[in-house]
Amino acid sequence: MLTIAVDAMGGDHAPKSEVEGAIRAARAYNVRVILVGKEDVLRRELAQHDGHRSLPIEVHHASERITMEESAAKAVRTKRDSSIRVASRLVREGVAQGLVSAGNTGAVMATSKMVQGMIPGVDRPALASAFPTLKGKPAVMVDVGANVDCSPRMLAQFAVMGEIYSRVIFRTESPAVGLLSIGEEESKGNELTRAATPLLKSLPIRFVGNVEGRDVYTGAVDVIVCDGFIGNVALKVSEGLVDVIKHMLQESLEATITRKVGYILSRAGFADFRKRVDYSEYGGAPLLGVRGVCIICHGRSNANAIKNAIRVASEYAGGEIDCRIQEELAQWSGTSVAAARAD
Amino acid sequence: MLTIAVDAMGGDHAPKSEVEGAIRAARAYNVRVILVGKEDVLRRELAQHDGHRSLPIEVHHASERITMEESAAKAVRTKRDSSIRVASRLVREGVAQGLVSAGNTGAVMATSKMVQGMIPGVDRPALASAFPTLKGKPAVMVDVGANVDCSPRMLAQFAVMGEIYSRVIFRTESPAVGLLSIGEEESKGNELTRAATPLLKSLPIRFVGNVEGRDVYTGAVDVIVCDGFIGNVALKVSEGLVDVIKHMLQESLEATITRKVGYILSRAGFADFRKRVDYSEYGGAPLLGVRGVCIICHGRSNANAIKNAIRVASEYAGGEIDCRIQEELAQWSGTSVAAARAD
Repeated sequence: MLTIAVDAMGGDHAPKSEVEGAIRAARAYNVRVILVGKEDVLRRELAQHDGHRSLPIEVHHASERITMEESAAKAVRTKRDSSIRVASRLVREGVAQGLVSAGNTGAVMATSKMVQGMIPGVDRPALASAFPTLKGKPAVMVDVGANVDCSPRMLAQFAVMGEIYSRVIFRTESPAVGLLSIGEEESKGNELTRAATPLLKSLPIRFVGNVEGRDVYTGAVDVIVCDGFIGNVALKVSEGLVDVIKHMLQESLEATITRKVGYILSRAGFADFRKRVDYSEYGGAPLLGVRGVCIICHGRSNANAIKNAIRVASEYAGGEIDCRIQEELAQWSGTSVAAARAD
Repeated sequence: MLTIAVDAMGGDHAPKSEVEGAIRAARAYNVRVILVGKEDVLRRELAQHDGHRSLPIEVHHASERITMEESAAKAVRTKRDSSIRVASRLVREGVAQGLVSAGNTGAVMATSKMVQGMIPGVDRPALASAFPTLKGKPAVMVDVGANVDCSPRMLAQFAVMGEIYSRVIFRTESPAVGLLSIGEEESKGNELTRAATPLLKSLPIRFVGNVEGRDVYTGAVDVIVCDGFIGNVALKVSEGLVDVIKHMLQESLEATITRKVGYILSRAGFADFRKRVDYSEYGGAPLLGVRGVCIICHGRSNANAIKNAIRVASEYAGGEIDCRIQEELAQWSGTSVAAARAD
């Protein structure tokens, strides 16, 4: 049975969402969970849930927590007994096989990179996020915020890591990989995308060339490669737009009695739809490239999001994604990716 | 009465949408329209509409057209009698005060820049697009695709031009201008945004610092400044997401009879909502920085989109936006923007 360490003090609704998510995950999947944080707080929260004693859930004490508002760099340096750091240490020591946190994203990334270390051959870890698509199977976007200024070589590594992730977690047989740009022709794009194209072409993956923003949600490709600045903007714009659409739709549908009745009758349809675009169904964003597993959840994660993140963390660990990344990068290091280093 | 030249051969539905849009605009607004394209084709299309003879609509012949698939650079060089080029020439010669085209965006931008020329003080023209917001008043994003690699100085000029556009077209009194980035703190962002920040601060506009992707649709700011690569991705991701949401919602709502009844009862609400997120209501994207007026519409524009673009073109010309841009840039050229040139 795999063990996942959960930073139980990280999210906006911590430790409530984390504890409830852990209980739901332990019930639904074959997984052991270690909740990391203030022991008394966590025991009190666990006591709210009947039957938790029979589940494979443990508590591991950590005396400090890093808040959302803190500077990540400073907090990581000074708070040596933070819940995220202790949880990451459990992964490094092999006590747990994966880490889940809904805390300060910058602090989680820095901690995981420092404590768990990097996979040999990877220059920088990258955040991957799953986007719902018309085809049903989610598309993976890498990077959605770990690296703001990227080199062509980094984009090539993101492509390799994202492709493996798509194969293992979404069971895509031969994932189509696209480079996010502003036109389909190779000549379209900025300096970075034009420089990355020959490198991506030389990788033994199914690289299909440039894709545009509108292709993200159609499911035209399985993996979308971009720098972390643009990926983060795409992700946040999407989240903002979904919120606004929900709000506008509700406003329109509450305007008259007839519509209200209609709304009530079609409520199940809305619930379906919300579920399909709800980020919490996708279980957080993995930080690809670190040793072991690190799944970063949205700060506002609810118990369902934490539960799904625990599932993804155990599938990730079970699929030995980090070993595969290391092997494939090593295999290619003699060829194109290494050639780029010489540029 | 202002005169707007419409490239009637440009869009996916040309000349149908263009001709019908011109008729609707001439009926609704105090504006004269010159339809530019193959005379026989346009006269035949006009003949489909009763009463068009009493409207202030003229036809101006142009023997060639540039298709969506053509290389913009080559087409602009070789097709000297294209509908877009002839329409742009009418603006340069003062026969028309503005130009509307739903054609090949690259070709329209290059033609307008070359034929109409640039406003003194502007380095590069920029495409501005209006995004619907929760507050009701649209937010203006500049640049959404004219320039893929931008300097900090270009971003500062985009801010000035976008601010004037928001004031004149959306009548925002003192528009709040934000820089699109991946965190609100000044230190967050990439090399470009960090370098642009001091420049933006030195402009006599209400610059509120960084905004995130999720702020685009909340209406937190009136003007969003970014490079054309990121702006284009944000725009296309949004368009793609709206399409997918419409599709998913419809699918969910057609799944059972109860929901179908609900859907029918709430249909007016959906129509409201669609109108609110429909790009065609906003009347195209102005190319800020060229002399005269150039409004670029989506290739798939319908008659309503063309009609609204003609309205925006005449409001733009009436508001003398290009004079204001020239004046304000000249006024500031002695100060910060010029200082940046020295960098």
